[in-house]
Amino acid sequence: MKRPTLVSLARELGVSRQTVSNVLNAPHLVKPETRERVQAAITASGYRPNVAAQSLRKRRSMTLAMRIYPTLDGINGAVMDRFLHHLVDALRGRGYHLLLVTADSFDDEVEVLRDMHERGRIDGCILTDSHVDDDRPTRLADDGLAVCAFGRPWGRTDEASHIWVDVDGAAGTRKATEHLLRAGHRRIAFLGWTDSSDVGNDRRRGWEDGLRAAGLPGEALELRTESVDRFQAGFEAAERLLSRGADAAVCASDSLALGALEAFRRRGITLFPRAPIVGFDNTPIASASGLSSVDQCVEDAAEALTARFTAHLSRQGPSPTSEAGARLLEPELVVRELGSLFTP
Amino acid sequence: MKRPTLVSLARELGVSRQTVSNVLNAPHLVKPETRERVQAAITASGYRPNVAAQSLRKRRSMTLAMRIYPTLDGINGAVMDRFLHHLVDALRGRGYHLLLVTADSFDDEVEVLRDMHERGRIDGCILTDSHVDDDRPTRLADDGLAVCAFGRPWGRTDEASHIWVDVDGAAGTRKATEHLLRAGHRRIAFLGWTDSSDVGNDRRRGWEDGLRAAGLPGEALELRTESVDRFQAGFEAAERLLSRGADAAVCASDSLALGALEAFRRRGITLFPRAPIVGFDNTPIASASGLSSVDQCVEDAAEALTARFTAHLSRQGPSPTSEAGARLLEPELVVRELGSLFTP
Repeated sequence: MKRPTLVSLARELGVSRQTVSNVLNAPHLVKPETRERVQAAITASGYRPNVAAQSLRKRRSMTLAMRIYPTLDGINGAVMDRFLHHLVDALRGRGYHLLLVTADSFDDEVEVLRDMHERGRIDGCILTDSHVDDDRPTRLADDGLAVCAFGRPWGRTDEASHIWVDVDGAAGTRKATEHLLRAGHRRIAFLGWTDSSDVGNDRRRGWEDGLRAAGLPGEALELRTESVDRFQAGFEAAERLLSRGADAAVCASDSLALGALEAFRRRGITLFPRAPIVGFDNTPIASASGLSSVDQCVEDAAEALTARFTAHLSRQGPSPTSEAGARLLEPELVVRELGSLFTP
Repeated sequence: MKRPTLVSLARELGVSRQTVSNVLNAPHLVKPETRERVQAAITASGYRPNVAAQSLRKRRSMTLAMRIYPTLDGINGAVMDRFLHHLVDALRGRGYHLLLVTADSFDDEVEVLRDMHERGRIDGCILTDSHVDDDRPTRLADDGLAVCAFGRPWGRTDEASHIWVDVDGAAGTRKATEHLLRAGHRRIAFLGWTDSSDVGNDRRRGWEDGLRAAGLPGEALELRTESVDRFQAGFEAAERLLSRGADAAVCASDSLALGALEAFRRRGITLFPRAPIVGFDNTPIASASGLSSVDQCVEDAAEALTARFTAHLSRQGPSPTSEAGARLLEPELVVRELGSLFTP
């Protein structure tokens, strides 16, 4: 059987080609009875409009691009994978597709996205790994490309230059700190990262705020370490903190928390039923080992970003300069009990 | 400045529109001097052909699709992420783009890919998660969509129905077994999965072959367990195997291996400098903890699959029915020493 076209459908139905086209592209222009009849025939015929022809006519490819990074030598990449899956799902529900790109640097990323935009391959892009003095959003917007970001514009005063959604890391570590305070701990340490990244500083701030709000003395804020994001580093950091009197730990990552778990066990601290340790990112390894952890709720983040960005792309709002264009989501604390693997 | 077009470029250079088009699309038809002059002018002008127009003319979108799955509740998803990154990179080098799709089932995946193909959005697709009686390749090929797979056609007799690349899991566990045999172990257990998946059976076979080739008695092959793919399960399985006399373990995953590591340590078995345990997939957690593991070399797999599939798409070979269309890659054994975290 020959594949149906607009013309063959129109002939079969006794309407004009334009009417069939309108049913597909501007249904409000067509009388309801006609619209229903034509739509039913289109569905029955298996007609699929060619996306290249649609793209040329509408000047929209219904495709967005996002860069993926090489897997880091840690266990935290799992968060971006979860985000990616839910993003593709949320975009699919709104008729958009996601193209992946790789790049060697932020400059290269801008070049790659610019080139795809100039060729009409993409309508917009989703940036991740936001950082201080991140000029990607303005450079790409100058080129006419629609931009959104999973990650807030760190240190920017004009936070409304593009649509963004982020997770409030400080709120997460504060919840973790309050959880440990409620369990009776007063010497709660923080295991952070060496590189003073915005994300890392944000997570430390939540712990500080939690301790201050509980009225703990200023010296409680000194019970912290900075290290690379590895098991072994978390183990060594926790050993130092234990010798300084720590009785619980909030960690910037699950990698650090798992190292800390081992240090606590060797020190003979009761880990049953719950370890006085909270990780961050709720990675599969946290659930596999029974470690409590802060969950970024990336499903919600993917949905919130998709809803805002696709509404903006179809010019039904919000604009990047409106308050609705930005959103900080509250993460959740997942409290777990350790399996017998970690009990004495 | 107005964006250059084929016509404005041709006028500027004093050649026909067709000549400029030929330089872009069929350079072998143009005299070398003209080709160089026109190519230089195209580059200098910043001209970018519209991909939708190219797609309509060439009936090729230069875009492929691949389904991504939700992150599993384990630590092994990291392998697919590494594959994905290298795949996008390898495709980029050959002018192809990768679109991600999500689906609820294999049937849904076929429907989604078929629809994208009928709309001219994709030229081909990359399947993963091959399984016995997998009818996706033939169903999609019947529809005219080019198909390749990361994963061999398990249990199929006509293995040449589509291009595929896979990693030889049995070769990996055999290497792991030989490594432990060389270290003097004779009671080498295998920790496998409960679901008798093709991948799991393949990994077990490599261990069996290694033991048989070393001339060990048949009862050595009974030193194995099946469990779910979790730390705790690996720990419990290893405890049972240790009480049956095991002195080393080859595992179907890093999750199981990390559980086994803990069981060996509690039993007082020397883990220094190297644990007599080998995991599978060389996940970030293996490198973070100092665990030896079989690496699937997914970078090579992504490159091999991309090279074969893009050559096939541009009709420069190999065809799926040729031997060159299929390839089984040999994984590597990464031997590590444990950090002090796991030493007594």
